[in-house]
This record gives sequence, C-alpha cells and structure tokens, in this order.
Amino acid sequence: MTAPTVGIIGAGQLARMTTQAAMSLAVDVKVLAADPSDPACIAATAVEVGDPGDLAAIRRFAEGCDVVTFDHERVDLAAIATLEADGARVYPSSTTLRFSDKAHQRVEFSARELPVPQFAVVDSAADIEAFAAAHGWPVVAKTAVGGYDGRGVFVLADPHEARQVASTLVGCQIVVEPLLDIRAEIAVVVARRPSGAAIAYPVVETIQRHGICVETVTPADVDQCLAAEASELAISIAELTGAVGILAVEFFVTPDGLVVNELAPRPHNSGHWTIEGAVTSQFENHLRGILDWPLGATTTTAPAVAMVNILGGAHPTDPATRLSAALEVDDAHVHLY
Amino acid sequence: MTAPTVGIIGAGQLARMTTQAAMSLAVDVKVLAADPSDPACIAATAVEVGDPGDLAAIRRFAEGCDVVTFDHERVDLAAIATLEADGARVYPSSTTLRFSDKAHQRVEFSARELPVPQFAVVDSAADIEAFAAAHGWPVVAKTAVGGYDGRGVFVLADPHEARQVASTLVGCQIVVEPLLDIRAEIAVVVARRPSGAAIAYPVVETIQRHGICVETVTPADVDQCLAAEASELAISIAELTGAVGILAVEFFVTPDGLVVNELAPRPHNSGHWTIEGAVTSQFENHLRGILDWPLGATTTTAPAVAMVNILGGAHPTDPATRLSAALEVDDAHVHLY
Repeated sequence: MTAPTVGIIGAGQLARMTTQAAMSLAVDVKVLAADPSDPACIAATAVEVGDPGDLAAIRRFAEGCDVVTFDHERVDLAAIATLEADGARVYPSSTTLRFSDKAHQRVEFSARELPVPQFAVVDSAADIEAFAAAHGWPVVAKTAVGGYDGRGVFVLADPHEARQVASTLVGCQIVVEPLLDIRAEIAVVVARRPSGAAIAYPVVETIQRHGICVETVTPADVDQCLAAEASELAISIAELTGAVGILAVEFFVTPDGLVVNELAPRPHNSGHWTIEGAVTSQFENHLRGILDWPLGATTTTAPAVAMVNILGGAHPTDPATRLSAALEVDDAHVHLY
Repeated sequence: MTAPTVGIIGAGQLARMTTQAAMSLAVDVKVLAADPSDPACIAATAVEVGDPGDLAAIRRFAEGCDVVTFDHERVDLAAIATLEADGARVYPSSTTLRFSDKAHQRVEFSARELPVPQFAVVDSAADIEAFAAAHGWPVVAKTAVGGYDGRGVFVLADPHEARQVASTLVGCQIVVEPLLDIRAEIAVVVARRPSGAAIAYPVVETIQRHGICVETVTPADVDQCLAAEASELAISIAELTGAVGILAVEFFVTPDGLVVNELAPRPHNSGHWTIEGAVTSQFENHLRGILDWPLGATTTTAPAVAMVNILGGAHPTDPATRLSAALEVDDAHVHLY
C-alpha cells in the first residue's frame, strides 16, 4: 500500500487539525489554500494556492487526490457535482453538502417526520408577518445558506424588525421559525463510512454565547432516554444525508422534546473534545471514514470531558498570551490556532 | 507572546512525532535534516538541510531558534558545547548528553552509589579476560558510545570470542559487565524543566527481541515497591544528569534488585504508549520541558496500555500493508513511520 493522498479544499484550522491526525497514519494531505499563510499550510504534505470557489482550480487540485474533503461547507455545490461527474471521490458529497442549506434540510427532514421546528421558507417581510400571525411574535429568521457562528440568524420582535431584516436579505431564501423555548443545546458527532458503518460519539452539551460555541460538556447532562434518542436520530440523519466522514448534528432540547437545529458535514467544534477526550479523535475518524477504513472507538477517556473555546485578542484569559498559566491546569490540554 | 521556535537537530521519526505535538501549542519547529526526504521534513514549520555533525551548519541553524533539541543523541559533544558557549539554549545539554557514553555513565553512577552492574572500562581482549577471570564467563561487552537497538552489545562466551570482538573494536572504549540474570526489563520516562520540576510516567515493562523494544506494557507487572524505587531512581538520575525535557531510564530487574541499564535523553520508544495512553504525551512534555513550561499530567488514560513495535517490510503483520486490519482492533491506534 502506498500512502493515500487526501485533498482538503480550504486550509483553515480544521484542515490543520485533520492534517495533524493524518501524520500518525502516514496519510498525505494536500490542501487547496486561498492564501499560503492559511493555518493548515504549515502542516500539509503539499499546498496548492488557488481559489476554493474556482472550478478549474479545484478540478486541477482533485486530480492528484485519492479522496477530496473540505475545511468548511461554504463551497460551490455545482463545482462539487462536476468533480463527482469527473469520477472524483468527494466526501461529504454534493448530496450531503446540500443539507447545509437550512431550507432544503427543513423541507426534507419534515417530509421524513424527523423532528424539526415549525417553519416556512420565505423571501419577504410579508411572508414573515404571515408566519408570525399564525405562530406569534417573536420569530427567528435564518438565511438558508451562508450563516455560521450565529451570523445570519435574527430574532424578530415585530413587523418593523421583519421589514428591516427582509430588506437586507433581498433575494435570499429565509427560513422562519417560532422562537423556541430552548432548555439546552446538545450535539452528536457521527462518523460514517461509504459502506454504511456509522458510529456516534457520546452526546455533548454545547453552551453558546452570541451564537458561538464557548463550551462543551461530555456526557451531556440530559435524560438518558433523550440522549439515546439524539444518538439514534443523528445516525439516521447521517444515513439519510449520505454523510461520509464526520457529521455533527445539533439539537435543541425543548419542553416538547428534541428538534434538529443544524448540521455540519465535517469535523465540528462540538467534537474538539475528542482530541484527548475520546479514544479516537473526530479528525482521525473523519479520515478513516472518507478513506473507507474501519472507524475507531468513540468512547471517552475520562468520566467527563469539557472543552472551552477562548477567542483570542485582548481577552484576559487568552492562552496565546498566558499559555504557561493555562498549562498549569492539571489534565488540561491547550490547542492554539 | 509570539510562538517560540524549537530547533531539532536531526529529522527522523522522533522529530516528526515531536513536531506533530508542537502543532497543538502553536510551537514552530525547525529541523536540521541530513536529507530533505527525512521523516520530520513534511511536518516541520521550516527545514534546513545540512550535516547535523557539522559545527558551522548547527551554529547557523541554532541562530533562529529559541531552544535547540535533538532527534537522537548521536551528536558531536564538542559542537554542542560550542553552541552552549555561544549562549544557545540546548536541551539536553552537553552535560546530560555525555551520560549517553556508557563508560562515563557507569563511572559516575557507581561513584554516587546508584545501582549499576559490576563493570570495567577496557580497550583490549586481555582486559576483558581479566574481568572474566574475576567474574566468570560469559561476559557482556558494550561499546561505550554509538550503540543502539542492540547494536554494539556482545555476549562473549570465552577468550576466543573476547579476542574476536576486541579486534573489531580497536581504539574503542568497551564497558565489560557480567552476564546478568535478567528477570525483566523496565523503563521510566521522566520529564523535567530547567527550573527543576520533574515528573515520572508510570513504570513500563519493555520486552526486547534481538535488542529491539518490540512491546511495552504499562503498568509494569512488578512489585509496587520495586516500581516506586525505579521511579525515584529515574528522577534522581534526571537531576544528577541535569536532564531537561524527556529522559528515559532503562533498568534490569535482577534477583538482587534493580540495576540501571541505559539512558536516553529524549523521547524514547518506551514512551510511545503515552501518545494515546497518557494524559500528556512524552512528545508534548519534551516540548514543555525544554521550553520551561508547566509539565502535563503523566497518568494513564486506561487501566492498562500496551505498545507493539512492528518493523515493516515483508512482515505479515506490517500495518503499512494491512492498515485496515490493524484499525479493526478496537481501542488500538496505529502510528506509521
């Protein structure tokens, strides 16, 4: 066996962590980087600089790869479908990636009776107002594509706010939903092979601030039946969406039970704890999944594992400036990126 | 804080694994590689190609580094001492590295009443025969410098074999010792900071075949008092030798108790199990030690951890050709290099 080459479109922090995991398995990683100073460029076996949105660039890039994957899901679906038509192995596939579109996801999941909030796919203030008339204010409006880390999500109190947001999102598909009574947010990270084998990591509670995941706790402090239901739903969703490699499924816990929030068809920050906290990290299992190799055990290495996400800059606890203090914490690990 | 740069002289597998660990802490690693295809070159932040034995090359290399360390201890001590005189931070230091000379180690340790075998430092067949006359045949002859993985170690049954070996080692210092009744071999990996803080990993049993460590088991199946004694001895030896970063101390377990076998002042194959089996890997603790950062916890992540070292090639269990089969083993991790 010669070492396989995995191509990653995009060269951000997730590509870097995936590359770090790839070294143990002697998997070569080639990245398509928008900029040669992108985080993964230092770690990768080979770097191509090019526009990840440019079909010619990604076609050229894919030629030397045994399998192609992504640093993030903000990619041009038509370009990915072209790669697939060329015969490239691309995971997540265009079919899976399409579920990152919240409108597509809500429509498909609701048709299959998966638990999603009540919703409408709209493109005007009038439609938002009609939805609110049926379900009550406030409502939540989300851009169907392109939102992440809380961007593209708007809580609207009244028709005035609906008109404001609609005017900034002209031409965009908007998913409108009731403002849910969210008791907790949980996530399940699933690894899956093309042959169908799938395995879930223990359910994680995620704590969000301003739409950013600042903390995760494993196992989640929720009812065991609810946790089991979340695991089963996440595996069903991995199968339904044809996910290969890692898929993270985020759920809201409401008084009426679980509802699906969103999906990320790639290693996700709700799975960063797995680097030291699970027998096999999400990054290694992403590689094993997309290479159709046996998946590694997803059990925890400690009774409980917490992840804290600290944004850098002037923050007084920024480990980049206070690394030594951070390393004083026994059993803690620091990942700077 | 800007990211520190660690320079590694040599670019083999240990440098590669150290570099992999460095990525999490955003530590830049520059390697001085004899050949641009050396294992660590793919992983390092920067590569300089040059002769690790050439003083001018290592002086130039050290200039851009905050601290310099090594892939292996087969280095020119005079060159390292010159680097230190230049003001470079070099760990292990020339003082520590000198203990890789088995003659120096035996003489110094015996003077401090550390448990070493009976020995003589000799350079002729006549001296070997004189030692054997006092202690009985067979004896073990070891080259004082340059031996590793069983090379440079000779079991001599009689004067004829002594003369044969002495004739191939003309001009070399030879350490001659009785053939010990070895009941087991154990090793203790210690991490130490320049400021003196030191911490030992749990005691490991090492299983050698043809002088190569083929398997380790943690914790070692030895009496708890003996294990505690080994830990204490290893920490004393780290202090005595001024070790900084990782020091591996190998012991023989004999009917009369522990005796020191040899030292490795760097990450060592008796510590490879720490990558997944300990809270902090020996590679991360080597970096933390040489950077004078707080050391990470050395406790195990499972009740027992085994490491199996498989040499590649035509071996039927070579994971490079049977990776998928190796990954089927639940809870197992594969590191190819």
